[in-house]
Amino acid sequence: MREIGLDHLADIARGAAILGTGGGGDPYIGRLMARAALREHGPVELVPLAEVPDGAMVLPVAGMGAPTVMVEKLPSSAEMSNAVEALCGYLGRRPTHIACAEVGGVNSLIPVAAAARLGLPLIDADGMGRAFPELQMFIPALYGVRASPMALADDKGNRSVLDTVGNHWTERLARAATVEMGGSATTVLYAMDGAKARESMVPATLSLSAELGALVAARRGEAAAAVAERLGGRVLFTGKVLDVERRTQGGFARGTARLHGGAGELRLSFQNEHLLAELDGVPVATTPNLICVLDQQTGDPVTTEALRYGHRVTVLAAPCDPRWLTPEGLALAGPRYFGYDLDPVTL
Amino acid sequence: MREIGLDHLADIARGAAILGTGGGGDPYIGRLMARAALREHGPVELVPLAEVPDGAMVLPVAGMGAPTVMVEKLPSSAEMSNAVEALCGYLGRRPTHIACAEVGGVNSLIPVAAAARLGLPLIDADGMGRAFPELQMFIPALYGVRASPMALADDKGNRSVLDTVGNHWTERLARAATVEMGGSATTVLYAMDGAKARESMVPATLSLSAELGALVAARRGEAAAAVAERLGGRVLFTGKVLDVERRTQGGFARGTARLHGGAGELRLSFQNEHLLAELDGVPVATTPNLICVLDQQTGDPVTTEALRYGHRVTVLAAPCDPRWLTPEGLALAGPRYFGYDLDPVTL
Repeated sequence: MREIGLDHLADIARGAAILGTGGGGDPYIGRLMARAALREHGPVELVPLAEVPDGAMVLPVAGMGAPTVMVEKLPSSAEMSNAVEALCGYLGRRPTHIACAEVGGVNSLIPVAAAARLGLPLIDADGMGRAFPELQMFIPALYGVRASPMALADDKGNRSVLDTVGNHWTERLARAATVEMGGSATTVLYAMDGAKARESMVPATLSLSAELGALVAARRGEAAAAVAERLGGRVLFTGKVLDVERRTQGGFARGTARLHGGAGELRLSFQNEHLLAELDGVPVATTPNLICVLDQQTGDPVTTEALRYGHRVTVLAAPCDPRWLTPEGLALAGPRYFGYDLDPVTL
Repeated sequence: MREIGLDHLADIARGAAILGTGGGGDPYIGRLMARAALREHGPVELVPLAEVPDGAMVLPVAGMGAPTVMVEKLPSSAEMSNAVEALCGYLGRRPTHIACAEVGGVNSLIPVAAAARLGLPLIDADGMGRAFPELQMFIPALYGVRASPMALADDKGNRSVLDTVGNHWTERLARAATVEMGGSATTVLYAMDGAKARESMVPATLSLSAELGALVAARRGEAAAAVAERLGGRVLFTGKVLDVERRTQGGFARGTARLHGGAGELRLSFQNEHLLAELDGVPVATTPNLICVLDQQTGDPVTTEALRYGHRVTVLAAPCDPRWLTPEGLALAGPRYFGYDLDPVTL
């Protein structure tokens, strides 16, 4: 795949929302945003990560905030261009390539819209190989790339540029700004050169999303097993949602869901993304590995903000990028960072 | 006064803290900050407002946040230069003149330190003719000058640039950033050209501060009457502090103080600055006029964060800049903005 056109959007959005592990935004919204941009500006050139030149200026673009908010307050294209303008003004230079910060139903598609509107190529890669709730959770950060200078823009037209002493401060200040901006914002962050992008980003996650999306469209009721196989993971559980406790808090959607099925009771804990799956009290999958929830009948991904009582779903686990399992990766996004006193469950 | 040297600092800080109406920061801290800068860089040129050329780029500098925090977490010179650098980088141009955003024990002296460190002249003026707690309360705002683009910097080295759709959004986002930054930050905001500064700023408030400070040093126990006379105001009350209820909340020092004296019981309500004085339940002075508290014995100003049980003080009221009493001025900083269902008391 060397180009993203209107025909690819449904598959990419669906597949990205699977890899988004419950977070990264609603695929329907992501698809609408990208469709509007492609209709106006035509298809987007997709560049394999290995072909990005050393001196490129790579700019990841993403929505930030609570997905529960983003489904009601859709990111606009003005937010994206305001964020890019603010950062470029501050840095005094412009990007040559757009990238995805994370994989997700919105966060894989905002960069498609951004690349179309800015007339720039998009890199087939992202910074996590999945979605994560906080901005310091980014594989290039393990290679010394800093999130800031970063920019945020909101639906009102407000912009903020942050230039901090470390990624945890960037997360803290950006989260506070996101909350004031109404719970969601569009961001550009982790600007890096092409050499660093090739070394540190997770390759081919847009084409993998397209492939997974097509697989679901082809297999539907049997999609979960096929997706698990393609990702080298396994189906954990099939059953019905009994109960969802969810709150929009501190700029995140946090909560737990209880599911009942033949294997017992599965409890999912999430902060935007699914972080922990426990079967009858025993952890069966944990962050940083992927925990994905699919609709049992259609195979479509179910995001954490869309989980509801009575939903019949299949839950699968799949291995994350191995760099997340290093001590540095686990310090950023392992179970203990999120307050679960557990080692990560091996798949 | 055409120059500010080490010998002027004590008077300016003392006088500015009187005009700061309880806010604007502790004069001892302001004096220490300016002294360190003047010792290193020599005296600062003071330019009368009327002499600022049309094309000047005037940059007001101020501390933002709760004065209760600022007495423990002193602003550093690095914060000031980081804020200036961040804003200049974003705007792509540099200031020719530094100005005071408000009058206050710290906020009249941070600009002295900034002018010394940057090697720029300082304008004998400020944007309020007093101190006020929120950043949209600024007389040049009545003339269409916008607070943003503005920059904030903290003691850790973090910087933020805000570029918003209006001053209330700038206040909201800057306040959230200030709270995350630990409750206080150094800011640069309301950049304007020289013509606009001449039209809209309050002239000669640094030299007035110096004059009031000298008056207090000369008169001490009788200073309150002399200060009231110089400002065209009157002494409201003399008595002892019975009780102070104070909380650091949302980036402000808020509270009330009860004072007992021969005339009855005076209640002062403050949000960084004194906003309302009631004698036995009857309002006797209100924002936007100045309510100033002086130590009965020394005549030194008492800031809201320093008020304490047993303190013997004199309270005076003095007229504000008349532009605060226009409908637009009252909408920004009149009693009703602060939640008091009152017309401003005429002096």
